[in-house]
Amino acid sequence: MVTEEMAARVEHAAAEMGYRPNPFAYSLKTNRSFAVGVLIPDLTNPVFPPIIRGVERTLGDAGYTVILANSDNQGDRELVNLEELKTRQVDGLILATAHREDALIALCRAEEIPFVLVNRRSDEDGVSSVVADDAAGVRAVVSHLATLGHRRIAYIAGPQNLSTGLGRYRGFLDAMRGEGLEPAPDLIAFCDAFTEKEGFRAARDLLAGGGGFSAIVAGNDLLALGCYDALADLGLRCPEDISVTGYNDMPFADKFAPPLTTVRIPLDRMGAAAAKLLLRHMQDAGAGTQSMMLTPELMVRGSTARPSSGG
Amino acid sequence: MVTEEMAARVEHAAAEMGYRPNPFAYSLKTNRSFAVGVLIPDLTNPVFPPIIRGVERTLGDAGYTVILANSDNQGDRELVNLEELKTRQVDGLILATAHREDALIALCRAEEIPFVLVNRRSDEDGVSSVVADDAAGVRAVVSHLATLGHRRIAYIAGPQNLSTGLGRYRGFLDAMRGEGLEPAPDLIAFCDAFTEKEGFRAARDLLAGGGGFSAIVAGNDLLALGCYDALADLGLRCPEDISVTGYNDMPFADKFAPPLTTVRIPLDRMGAAAAKLLLRHMQDAGAGTQSMMLTPELMVRGSTARPSSGG
Repeated sequence: MVTEEMAARVEHAAAEMGYRPNPFAYSLKTNRSFAVGVLIPDLTNPVFPPIIRGVERTLGDAGYTVILANSDNQGDRELVNLEELKTRQVDGLILATAHREDALIALCRAEEIPFVLVNRRSDEDGVSSVVADDAAGVRAVVSHLATLGHRRIAYIAGPQNLSTGLGRYRGFLDAMRGEGLEPAPDLIAFCDAFTEKEGFRAARDLLAGGGGFSAIVAGNDLLALGCYDALADLGLRCPEDISVTGYNDMPFADKFAPPLTTVRIPLDRMGAAAAKLLLRHMQDAGAGTQSMMLTPELMVRGSTARPSSGG
Repeated sequence: MVTEEMAARVEHAAAEMGYRPNPFAYSLKTNRSFAVGVLIPDLTNPVFPPIIRGVERTLGDAGYTVILANSDNQGDRELVNLEELKTRQVDGLILATAHREDALIALCRAEEIPFVLVNRRSDEDGVSSVVADDAAGVRAVVSHLATLGHRRIAYIAGPQNLSTGLGRYRGFLDAMRGEGLEPAPDLIAFCDAFTEKEGFRAARDLLAGGGGFSAIVAGNDLLALGCYDALADLGLRCPEDISVTGYNDMPFADKFAPPLTTVRIPLDRMGAAAAKLLLRHMQDAGAGTQSMMLTPELMVRGSTARPSSGG
């Protein structure tokens, strides 16, 4: 038995002599690493840094280090990243990469690693996530365009294996019908990734199909920037010839030519909420899962205007 | 003594029974974590994600995990982050935060942690770093403006305790004199941080000082975006009334209104080069330090034009 006084004297002497606790030895004993992994599909997508900042601040305050892994939109990289994080025995994971059906989620469950999805949802039940209300966001966009007088509205959808891709696409169909407008199948294009390049390709395809629309609703801001490129290539002006909307209100969206009408998501707050949820799961393995939905806000800027020919 | 055959049989049996090596036990024995810390001053500055991507790809290929810490431009946070990374016993550090004189550098040296600066240089000798040639970049900008006919050119400088802040400012003075133009002290403003907000404040101060200039050279793209805001506030047009240039060619600089004339730095390549340099230092404690300088490229876009009244 070591008395309290003796323990204090040992600690004091150790500190005086410059000894430091070895975190590997400590982790070996407690089996906790105080590290959390964050899986990001594409760090160069400006949406993620503000989310990460919210995550990092919240977890840092609680004494956790954030290990970031970037998969560059490659599914195989995600699994490699997860393996690596498991090897480092992270105490929990925040997945910004998750697909609607995702091997990562099955793996986390099998390994009993606490995890939370951010800006993504799973088709499975019992998965904690923090997302924005995509149906409400797209409804606000379509309502704005309809009020301006647009009738023939094209849609550029993100990947349908991502909850944001599917949710905003479904939101668009519902919102159009809500406005009494039938969405035209030939005015809808699908993208393999949320990138400027894919937005460019999709917009070019839609315009090559004869056009006949006065506005494009894009599944996110990067897709909308791709639309800007496609319009410029054909000598079409935004918003005079075609209105364009984005989604996310990524940093500097107000600085683009033209400033982008888009849907603002509270990105930093979303990251912080996901981190708080994860802390709860890490502290209490029996804590119930929770799905949080944050309210988005329409930002009307220069990329939308009345249709030139009545829509 | 264990024979090779016996070792192989034990390994095989362990694998069959689903045993995995415990990385904490392994790290305790080897005292290597196979983790590298990357200290970032501001993750929401779009310059850093491409640098991090280059770092992450190169280190990931070599079997290292990247631990990212974001200090939000706060010096005290940098020290806290370093302490945390030390606790996690990173094998090396990449510092994108470093000031010209930096306690972090002294600490890394005292602790004998291999480190490399990226996009930053130290005033001290014997520190490995990868930067772009700021003097050449600013010279290209000033030469471009002088060729357009600008004579009275204002400068918005970044923080002088950062090598990029000082180097570009000195580069500006030299480049002006190289063009036979005397830089006017009242046309130079200094900023506390490389942020849009600081650029806005500095540009407003310069314009309130009576103006008398036809172009603003900004120390980086975020400062240039702040100039856009200040000009718009006063009803001045860019480039018709005042030309503006940035530095970095951050993602989407070509999409701004107007598209920003700036200096392109090979950001991803810079990150990869810093990672390679760090790998060499981690593998060989006696490896000599090295300073790499990458060549920047002038990107002429819509934010610069001939002066309206002869400069």
